[in-house]
Amino acid sequence: MADPLDSDIRPGEITTALPQAHDAGVYFIGHIRTPWTSRRDCPRRGAEDGPECRIELDPRWARVLTGIEAHPRIQVLYWMHLSRRDLVLQAPGHGSTLIGTFALRSPVRPNPIASSVVRLERVEGTTLIVRGLDCVDGTPVVDIKPERTVHAAET
Amino acid sequence: MADPLDSDIRPGEITTALPQAHDAGVYFIGHIRTPWTSRRDCPRRGAEDGPECRIELDPRWARVLTGIEAHPRIQVLYWMHLSRRDLVLQAPGHGSTLIGTFALRSPVRPNPIASSVVRLERVEGTTLIVRGLDCVDGTPVVDIKPERTVHAAET
Repeated sequence: MADPLDSDIRPGEITTALPQAHDAGVYFIGHIRTPWTSRRDCPRRGAEDGPECRIELDPRWARVLTGIEAHPRIQVLYWMHLSRRDLVLQAPGHGSTLIGTFALRSPVRPNPIASSVVRLERVEGTTLIVRGLDCVDGTPVVDIKPERTVHAAET
Repeated sequence: MADPLDSDIRPGEITTALPQAHDAGVYFIGHIRTPWTSRRDCPRRGAEDGPECRIELDPRWARVLTGIEAHPRIQVLYWMHLSRRDLVLQAPGHGSTLIGTFALRSPVRPNPIASSVVRLERVEGTTLIVRGLDCVDGTPVVDIKPERTVHAAET
């Protein structure tokens, strides 16, 4: 269900017909718990001194986290499930200038995948406690990676 | 089709049964042309003084690029289509230590989405010419964003 904040179109904004079929599928590996229950409450940008948020992964991924504690900062890819996907030109900041979706970090985009680098505070089972997120409570997660490559020859 | 490089499993590596259904779908917005025709040829990490690569977007997204030229560095999310998705524990660098997929930046992961920040050299129609990628020729793209938020109140 789209939040009204996301589904509104501002004057001049342009939509497009999306492709008829998806090209690939993603699994939601878990969900993010934050203090913000609607998009209107979310901070504009996550801060590393912001509140703790919880990335609760499905227990099936328990072993997939092995070694994550070694990384003080991790990259989180999540799916902005409340955002419409069909906006071509947007009017950020309620200004009159129209800017293309790919020239913005707006959540409204054809593939609503967000990327945030956050501080990993601790791991509790299959839950990661982090600081630095800014998304709405209940947002699905699609990937967790260390911020940087560490191993000499990964894969 | 999986590249043999990706589909091999090393001693000790552990797979899992993936969920039975996807939770969301992605659109491939275009494809990346690079000098590397197999994963074995790809550099380990893209460099901003590396060769020019071309991100060729489908013409349907032409207006979605409006304003992208203002950004010297952009973030590219792409789909590592040759990678298997079911590895839980991996042995990077052919070592004996097993590390969880989410503690690695390996292309082999449940949702094979890569994130790279690259230098935008120029735009030619719906093609972005960039330096700093390291993926195989033909890799599908799923998102383009500025490296940083610039506008005072995006969305």
